[in-house]
Amino acid sequence: MGLIQLRKLAYRQLEPSAWPGKGLSPVNFGLIILIVFAVIEAVIDTEPVISNGRERLLNNVEFSIGIIFLIEYIARAWVEVENPRFAKYRFPRLRYMMTPIAIIDLLAIIPALFAFGGAPSLMLRFFRVLRMLRLAKLGRTSKAWVLLREAFIQKRQEFGLILGMLLVMILTAGSLLYWAEGDAQPDKFGSIPRAMWWAIITLTTVGYGDTFPITPLGKFLAGVIAIMGVMLIALPTGLFAASFTEAMDREREKEATNTAVREALKKAKDKG
Amino acid sequence: MGLIQLRKLAYRQLEPSAWPGKGLSPVNFGLIILIVFAVIEAVIDTEPVISNGRERLLNNVEFSIGIIFLIEYIARAWVEVENPRFAKYRFPRLRYMMTPIAIIDLLAIIPALFAFGGAPSLMLRFFRVLRMLRLAKLGRTSKAWVLLREAFIQKRQEFGLILGMLLVMILTAGSLLYWAEGDAQPDKFGSIPRAMWWAIITLTTVGYGDTFPITPLGKFLAGVIAIMGVMLIALPTGLFAASFTEAMDREREKEATNTAVREALKKAKDKG
Amino acid sequence: MGLIQLRKLAYRQLEPSAWPGKGLSPVNFGLIILIVFAVIEAVIDTEPVISNGRERLLNNVEFSIGIIFLIEYIARAWVEVENPRFAKYRFPRLRYMMTPIAIIDLLAIIPALFAFGGAPSLMLRFFRVLRMLRLAKLGRTSKAWVLLREAFIQKRQEFGLILGMLLVMILTAGSLLYWAEGDAQPDKFGSIPRAMWWAIITLTTVGYGDTFPITPLGKFLAGVIAIMGVMLIALPTGLFAASFTEAMDREREKEATNTAVREALKKAKDKG
Amino acid sequence: MGLIQLRKLAYRQLEPSAWPGKGLSPVNFGLIILIVFAVIEAVIDTEPVISNGRERLLNNVEFSIGIIFLIEYIARAWVEVENPRFAKYRFPRLRYMMTPIAIIDLLAIIPALFAFGGAPSLMLRFFRVLRMLRLAKLGRTSKAWVLLREAFIQKRQEFGLILGMLLVMILTAGSLLYWAEGDAQPDKFGSIPRAMWWAIITLTTVGYGDTFPITPLGKFLAGVIAIMGVMLIALPTGLFAASFTEAMDREREKEATNTAVREALKKAKDKG
Repeated sequence: MGLIQLRKLAYRQLEPSAWPGKGLSPVNFGLIILIVFAVIEAVIDTEPVISNGRERLLNNVEFSIGIIFLIEYIARAWVEVENPRFAKYRFPRLRYMMTPIAIIDLLAIIPALFAFGGAPSLMLRFFRVLRMLRLAKLGRTSKAWVLLREAFIQKRQEFGLILGMLLVMILTAGSLLYWAEGDAQPDKFGSIPRAMWWAIITLTTVGYGDTFPITPLGKFLAGVIAIMGVMLIALPTGLFAASFTEAMDREREKEATNTAVREALKKAKDKG
Repeated sequence: MGLIQLRKLAYRQLEPSAWPGKGLSPVNFGLIILIVFAVIEAVIDTEPVISNGRERLLNNVEFSIGIIFLIEYIARAWVEVENPRFAKYRFPRLRYMMTPIAIIDLLAIIPALFAFGGAPSLMLRFFRVLRMLRLAKLGRTSKAWVLLREAFIQKRQEFGLILGMLLVMILTAGSLLYWAEGDAQPDKFGSIPRAMWWAIITLTTVGYGDTFPITPLGKFLAGVIAIMGVMLIALPTGLFAASFTEAMDREREKEATNTAVREALKKAKDKG
Repeated sequence: MGLIQLRKLAYRQLEPSAWPGKGLSPVNFGLIILIVFAVIEAVIDTEPVISNGRERLLNNVEFSIGIIFLIEYIARAWVEVENPRFAKYRFPRLRYMMTPIAIIDLLAIIPALFAFGGAPSLMLRFFRVLRMLRLAKLGRTSKAWVLLREAFIQKRQEFGLILGMLLVMILTAGSLLYWAEGDAQPDKFGSIPRAMWWAIITLTTVGYGDTFPITPLGKFLAGVIAIMGVMLIALPTGLFAASFTEAMDREREKEATNTAVREALKKAKDKG
Repeated sequence: MGLIQLRKLAYRQLEPSAWPGKGLSPVNFGLIILIVFAVIEAVIDTEPVISNGRERLLNNVEFSIGIIFLIEYIARAWVEVENPRFAKYRFPRLRYMMTPIAIIDLLAIIPALFAFGGAPSLMLRFFRVLRMLRLAKLGRTSKAWVLLREAFIQKRQEFGLILGMLLVMILTAGSLLYWAEGDAQPDKFGSIPRAMWWAIITLTTVGYGDTFPITPLGKFLAGVIAIMGVMLIALPTGLFAASFTEAMDREREKEATNTAVREALKKAKDKG
C-alpha cells in the first residue's frame, strides 16, 4: 500500500500533465536545471583548453549525472502504470519504453556510463555528441516545441513548395557555375556537387569566401544568381514568422479561455 | 479500333488534366520518380570521385534513362490528337511538338543519347548541364510553378521598380568605390564593372571577402553603402512573401469551392 | 510667330506633365533610351579589357552623347518660359537653371566635353563617375523615385530612431571588440574607428572575413553581438517593405480614381 | 531665497519632465550636443593615425568635457530636492545618486579625470570604452529607448522561445560539425565550443570564412544547417518589426490624444 502511494506521488511529480499545481513540479524543475548543467558540462568537456588536467573531475561529474538520469529513467518507467495513456496495455512499462521520448532518454544516458571507458577517438566523439540528446528531454515540459511544430504543420504545403524551389534553384545555380567556372577552377567548380556547395553558401548569403567565381562569365552569372536568390530564399522568412505568430496568438487565447473557465468553476464550487 | 482505345488510355495516363482520379496517374507518378532519379544520376555523374571507374555503369544508366524519356516523348506526341487543345489544328502532333514544354523535353533527351559519344570537354559539360532540363519536365504536373508565376505577375510593377532601384544602387555603389579605391586596388576596383562585382556581393550581404576596400575613405563609403543597401535590398522579401501567400490562399479557397461543388453534384446524382 | 509655335511644341515634348497623350512623349522616350545607352557606355569605358585600343571610338561616342545632352539642356531652358511654374518669375530661364534637376543635368554634361581633354588620373576618374549623374535625369519621368521618397517621408520618425539605434549598436559593438581584441590584433581592432569597420560588416551580415576576433573573449562577444545585431538590424526591412507597399497601393487607387473620373467626363461630353 | 529661486530655475532646465515649453530645455539641448561631440572625440582619440602628436590637445578637450559633466552631475544632485519623486525621502540627493542613470553619469565622468593620468595600456583601454557610457546619458531625453523596451516586453514570451530555439540550434549545429569535422580540422572544429563559433557565424549568415567545413560530410551537414538555419533565424525579424511598429502606432495615437486634450483645455480656459 505504501509503495502504491509513493508511486502515485512520484507519478504526479514526474508527469507534467498530472501535476495539480501551476507550472512545473519541483522534481521536473530540478531536472530541467540538471539538464542545462549537464549540457554545459558536456560542451566544455570537449574543449582541451578547459578539460586538460581536469579529466578526473569531469568524468566524475559526468558519471554522477548519468546515474541521476538512469534513476529518473527507471522511475519514469515504474510510474507509467499510473498513466491512463499506457494503463490499458498489457505491459504498460514496456509500452512506455518504446515511445520516442523514452528511447531518447535511454540513448542520452548511455554515453555517461562510458565516461571512464576509454573509448577510441571516433566513438568517443560520437558519444559526446550523443550527450546533447539530453536537450531533447526538455521537450517533455516545453510548449515551444509544440508551437513550432504547429506553425510548421499549418504551412507544410508552402514549406514543401519552397523547399522544392530552393533545391531547384541550388541545382540550377550549381549547374550554371559548373559550366562557366569548371575549367578555370576544377577543384571548386569541377563537378555539379562541388558547385552546389558554392550555390548553397551563396544563396543563403553566408558567403564564406572559400569558393567564388573568378572568370567574367562566372562573376556575371553569380551576380544575377545572388540577386534572384536573395529574393526567393527570403520567401520562407515571412511565411514562417507569420505562421508562428498566429500559433502563438491562438495559444494565448486558449490559455485565457482556460483561465476564465477555471475561475468560473471555482466560483460555482465556492457558491454551492 | 484497338489502337484508338490504347491511345485514349495512354492519353488519360499521360495528360494530368485528363486523369479522372485524384492526384496523378500511375504513369505520371512513375515518371516523376524517374526524373528525380535521372537528375541525381546526372549530378553525381559529374563528380570524378564518384564516377571514376564507374563510367560504363553510369553511361548505361544514362542511356537507358534517355531511351525511356524518348519513348515518353514519342508517346506524348502520338496521343496529343486526343487533346482538345491541339485537335483543332491540321497537324496536332506537330503543333504539340512546337510547344515550349515539348521542346524542353526533346532538349533534355539529346544529352543522354550522346552518353557514349566521347564529346570534347566543353561540349560534354554543356550536355551534362542540359540534362538538368529534366527538372523542367516536373513543371507539367506542378502547381508550384503556376503559383510562383502568379505571385510574380500580380506584383510585376513593384518588382520592376525594385529591380530598377537595385541596378541604380549597384551602379552608384560601384562608381563610388571605383572612385575611392581604384588607385589602391586597380585589380579589384580599377573599373566600374569590377567595382560592381564588389557592389553586388556586398549589397546581397554574401560578402565573399575576395574584394573589400582597404583605404579609410573606401571603408567609410562601403560602411554607409552596406547599411543603406541592406535596408533597400530587403524590400523585395516582404513584397514577394506577401504576394506568394495571397496566391496560396486564393488557390486553397478555389480548391475548397471545387470540392464543395463536386460533392453537391454527387449528392444530387445519388438522390435522383 | 513660328518660333513661339515651335517652343510650344518643344515644351509639350520635353515636359512630361505637359504631354497630352498617355505615357511619355516620343522625345522623352528617346532620351531615356539614350540615357541608358550613355550609362552603359560610361561603365564599359572604364574597363581596360574592353576600352584598350578603342579609346578613339569611345571618346567619339562620349562626345556625341555630350553634344545631344547639351542641346537638350539648352532646349529645356529655352522652353521653360511656357512652364506656368516659372513663367511668373522675372527671369524664368535663369530660375529653371537654378533648380536641382537642371544643375544635375549640367553637371552630367561637363565630363563628356572633356572626353578628349587628357585630364590627369584622379580627375579623370572623378569625371567618369560624374557621368553616372545621367541616371538622375531619369528621375524627371519616374514615379518610382516619388514613391520611394513618400515611403521614406511617411516613416521618417521610425527611420530616424532605427538609424540612431544602429549607430549606437555599431559604436557599442566596436568599443567592446576594441577592448577585447585591441591587444591581440592592433592592426584591425587597435582603435575604435577600426573596430567599427568590423562592427558594420558584421551587423549587416556581409562578413568579408578581413577582420574577425581570434581571442576566446572576442569570439564570445562577437557571437552575442552577431545574434542581437541580426535581430535589430532586420527591423528596418519590415518597416520599409510595409511603408513602400502602402505607398504603391495609394498610388494605384489614385490612378483608378483618375481613370474613372476621366471616363465619366468623356461620357458626359459624348452625351452633350 | 535667491538660491532657492536659482535651484528652481536649474531644476526646470535640467529635468525634461519639468520643462514647461515644448521639446527640450536649452540646457538639455546643449548637453545633447556636447554628449555627441564628446563621444566623437572619445572615438577618434583611440585612433593613433589621428591622435599621434595631438595628445595634449585631445587630453585638454577630454578634461574640459569631464569638468562640464562633473558640474552637470553636481547640479543635478543639487536640484533633485525639487523633484517630487525624491523629495519624500530623508536624503533626496543621496537617493538620486543611487538611481542607475546617476551611477552611469558618474562612471562616464571618471575616465575624463584620468586623462593625464598615464594609466597602463589595459586600464587605459577600459577607461576609453567607459567614455562611451556618455551615450547612455541620452536615454534621459529619448523616447526611442522607451519604445524599444516596450516592443521587447510585449513579445518577451516569443523572444524567450526564439532565443531558446536559437541556442538549441547553435548547439546542435556545433555538435554535428564537431563530430563530422573534428578530425579533419582540430584547430577549428576540435571541440564543441570551437564548432559553436562556426555555427553562430554561419546561422547569422555573417560567414567570415575563417572556419568552414572541408570534408564532404561536413559540407553536406553545413549545407542543410545553413538552409534550415536561415529559415529559423529569420523568425525574430518579422516578430520584432511587427511589435515595434505596433508600439510606434500606439505612441502616435497617445500623442494625438494628448494634443487634442491640451487644445480642448486651452479653449475652455480661453472661454472662461
